[in-house]
Amino acid sequence: MNGAESLVRSLIGSGVEVCFTNPGTSEMHFVAALDHIAGMRSVLALQEGVATGAADGYYRMAGKPASTLLHLGPGLANGLSNLHNAKKAGSGVVNIVGEHAASHIELDAPLTSDIEGIARPVSHWVRSSTSAADVGIDAVEAVQAAMVAPGQIATLILPSDTAWNEGGEVHGARVPPAPAPCEAATLDQAALALDGPETLLLLGGTALTESNLEMAGRIAAKTGCKLLSEWANARVERGAGRVVINRVPYPIDIALKVLEPYKRIVLLGARAPIGFFAYPGKPAILTREGADIIPLAGAGADLTGALTALTDAVDATDTPPAHIAEADLPERPKGPLDLDKLAQVIARNIPEDGIIVDESVTTGRAFFPATKGAAAHTWLNNCGGSIGYSIPAAIGCAIACPDRKVLALTGDGSAMYTVQGLWTMAREALDVTILIFANRSYQILRGELTNVGVGNPGPRAIDMLSLDRPALDWVQMARSMGVDACRVDDCEALDAAMQEGLDTPGPYLIQVDL
Amino acid sequence: MNGAESLVRSLIGSGVEVCFTNPGTSEMHFVAALDHIAGMRSVLALQEGVATGAADGYYRMAGKPASTLLHLGPGLANGLSNLHNAKKAGSGVVNIVGEHAASHIELDAPLTSDIEGIARPVSHWVRSSTSAADVGIDAVEAVQAAMVAPGQIATLILPSDTAWNEGGEVHGARVPPAPAPCEAATLDQAALALDGPETLLLLGGTALTESNLEMAGRIAAKTGCKLLSEWANARVERGAGRVVINRVPYPIDIALKVLEPYKRIVLLGARAPIGFFAYPGKPAILTREGADIIPLAGAGADLTGALTALTDAVDATDTPPAHIAEADLPERPKGPLDLDKLAQVIARNIPEDGIIVDESVTTGRAFFPATKGAAAHTWLNNCGGSIGYSIPAAIGCAIACPDRKVLALTGDGSAMYTVQGLWTMAREALDVTILIFANRSYQILRGELTNVGVGNPGPRAIDMLSLDRPALDWVQMARSMGVDACRVDDCEALDAAMQEGLDTPGPYLIQVDL
Repeated sequence: MNGAESLVRSLIGSGVEVCFTNPGTSEMHFVAALDHIAGMRSVLALQEGVATGAADGYYRMAGKPASTLLHLGPGLANGLSNLHNAKKAGSGVVNIVGEHAASHIELDAPLTSDIEGIARPVSHWVRSSTSAADVGIDAVEAVQAAMVAPGQIATLILPSDTAWNEGGEVHGARVPPAPAPCEAATLDQAALALDGPETLLLLGGTALTESNLEMAGRIAAKTGCKLLSEWANARVERGAGRVVINRVPYPIDIALKVLEPYKRIVLLGARAPIGFFAYPGKPAILTREGADIIPLAGAGADLTGALTALTDAVDATDTPPAHIAEADLPERPKGPLDLDKLAQVIARNIPEDGIIVDESVTTGRAFFPATKGAAAHTWLNNCGGSIGYSIPAAIGCAIACPDRKVLALTGDGSAMYTVQGLWTMAREALDVTILIFANRSYQILRGELTNVGVGNPGPRAIDMLSLDRPALDWVQMARSMGVDACRVDDCEALDAAMQEGLDTPGPYLIQVDL
Repeated sequence: MNGAESLVRSLIGSGVEVCFTNPGTSEMHFVAALDHIAGMRSVLALQEGVATGAADGYYRMAGKPASTLLHLGPGLANGLSNLHNAKKAGSGVVNIVGEHAASHIELDAPLTSDIEGIARPVSHWVRSSTSAADVGIDAVEAVQAAMVAPGQIATLILPSDTAWNEGGEVHGARVPPAPAPCEAATLDQAALALDGPETLLLLGGTALTESNLEMAGRIAAKTGCKLLSEWANARVERGAGRVVINRVPYPIDIALKVLEPYKRIVLLGARAPIGFFAYPGKPAILTREGADIIPLAGAGADLTGALTALTDAVDATDTPPAHIAEADLPERPKGPLDLDKLAQVIARNIPEDGIIVDESVTTGRAFFPATKGAAAHTWLNNCGGSIGYSIPAAIGCAIACPDRKVLALTGDGSAMYTVQGLWTMAREALDVTILIFANRSYQILRGELTNVGVGNPGPRAIDMLSLDRPALDWVQMARSMGVDACRVDDCEALDAAMQEGLDTPGPYLIQVDL
């Protein structure tokens, strides 16, 4: 057995079932092994940012890592920014990166680069295999590293001779360490702090599952504390019948106002709120001065255990949860779209058990409140701030959950970053409906110009933030890659188009002109 | 004056006239400074791989660096693989990368990453400014570093407080060190070695200018030595009236055969030939065993000086150069396209003084020989092997040389990597004609499967190298981004389309079905 075969068999044995890839010459033995060994679905991407973003979305929905197969340093580099997003989301990913044969590296061929150096800034775990015999054990240790809670980026670099040489050994799965329980003293401190509406229970990570949110709702009902989540969440369960959880707002001034009442903040899978960016003359720490921050459990801790213990400590186990959302759809809006009506149409069309991949940036500020009474669904945010996450992540979600509808909500500027992913959606016939919010600008930056203190931006500055010269035609763009599409500019047309997209199997793109 | 203004004024004072960018919040003060200070053309890209690839093409044609303006670690990361290509081509690039304000970095916000770590694998020079007062001097030193021969990647990281704080100082240009002359002893050795057809003068880098090639032609005429260039050249001047220079072939077996006769190889701006990849059981060093390799001058040396000295040493100053190409256009081919006919149509349509950006991979193996007698032109190769270089590089060429026609030749797989660049071509009305060779596969990898020893690839392996499910519609793709386009599948239609594209100002894309 060669090293490549031992890799594929060891990955499959560790539960890795999907490989998002764009392979090259140095990966041909892995391609051959994937061909003749059953059990791994290979999904081709036309740019590696699509592959790594898909692995992020996959982990969030499958709860276990996919692999990527990337071509040397540049292939990894193309996937780097969505690995950054995955890292910040706490998603586990196993990157397999090809490398020249050991004897070839010193010759400094055109594709030679410092692959470990490229990998390290986005990886929790980096290793280069040194022989075919090591590949199997390296693979299972990579999967183990990726599964350390909440999920980590593991990058395994495989010189091509380790793939083609004989001597490969298949290894069994390694179990990652169990997430740590919260400390008893901190638990007591948190339970004591939960004594009314001046205390905030701030949730993140896997504290946002349906059952964990239900426990948070019981605690809120019992103690009168308030609940919020971080601004960006890897995954939150919401909609009718679930505990409503609002997010800390993005704009500094609004976030300060929302957080001002809280003298005590218990962190459970979340970090203390800070600004996304620094701004001249504005604070970066968003909590009130002197607020008592109680870090009960970090993102990698046993959050279910912590919530169970906290529920018990405040004697809320039998308390009915507060803030359960009632089914509540907005009236059917009519006429030209504005941001509120857009949110209403979306809320009405969210399918039962749908997965919403949200990269709507400025357009979507109203979506979250408007959809709290929509059909029960899962909501995913971009946690790393690198745009171009939503089309790839939607691919990963659809592959992880083939029986659920995926709805991707994205600005036009963000969507262009990884637009190549539309082709993969068509190829794999993924059931994704994509709404492109075509405001023909990096709208968020127009606001940020003012926020950072640039008054009266001139025409050349505005032009650098504009996408309207020429306007992008998303219908042609989608069709060029085999995805059917339409274009709408009023409520009725969007409503009909969303029904069409969600009712029909396979991908469908809707250009929403704003 | 704030730091951002001192940056822009110092860059302009050092001769940097173009900024390829996709800015974000942390770069808004630079955007504002670019707005109100005249002298820097800002070119917006919808993905940073387009920006960095454009800077590569710009340097090759302008002979001086452009700047890029990139958004934190992820923005740099998206541009990394085309910086890899630029580094391998010896292109100078000045990357300006935004960063959080110093006080914000420790808070580990979503976009926080190890920017220096991301930059280092592709950069010769990396620095983070520490105050507004440093930005100006850091900028001129970055330009100086980028201009070290043959050209280097300089990455300057600017925390946003260094941009918005007052205290910026404008600094004057710093002169890079002069390229080193070749050593007298090596020159004597090289002159002695040049004694007939068993000696190869292997050229690379700036040895491939028209006048330097003419000197090489004189040396060949006088000594009987042979001339070749490296497989991938950043820029070579060729066509009717110029000295013909063939390239060391890509396929190992053919390269070995071509290089077999040479007992002595003088390197002038080139490195000793090695394989692009390692293959089981094949050599990586392509020269005959025991060949005498004489490294006369590396890519960063004074190659014009070295060629002048060598011409003098072999007494060839007044010898008419050998191998001057006569104007020689192939017959007008007819009917369905094959790779030879394709090369003929291209040769006939190369415009006088045209710039050819070649990323044709397998499709283009016949292009170089077929075009040697075409109208005088400049030919650019991808030197780093990371696909997706041609559309961006063509942008940079067109901006560096607004009076010359640019012809980009690219495979469909490569073009998809940075397809977003079509929009920038439309926006800037760049005079580029793009031929997309639509063979609907990563054709090179089908060959490489065999080369690395994978016999009988199965259907799943073939599928991972295929782009035909669904087929890409390049006409719709181009039009979606504002670029007019057509589709051809025979010689006559391609001929007419190339005339149309080259005669009409602005970008034009031709899908060539193969």
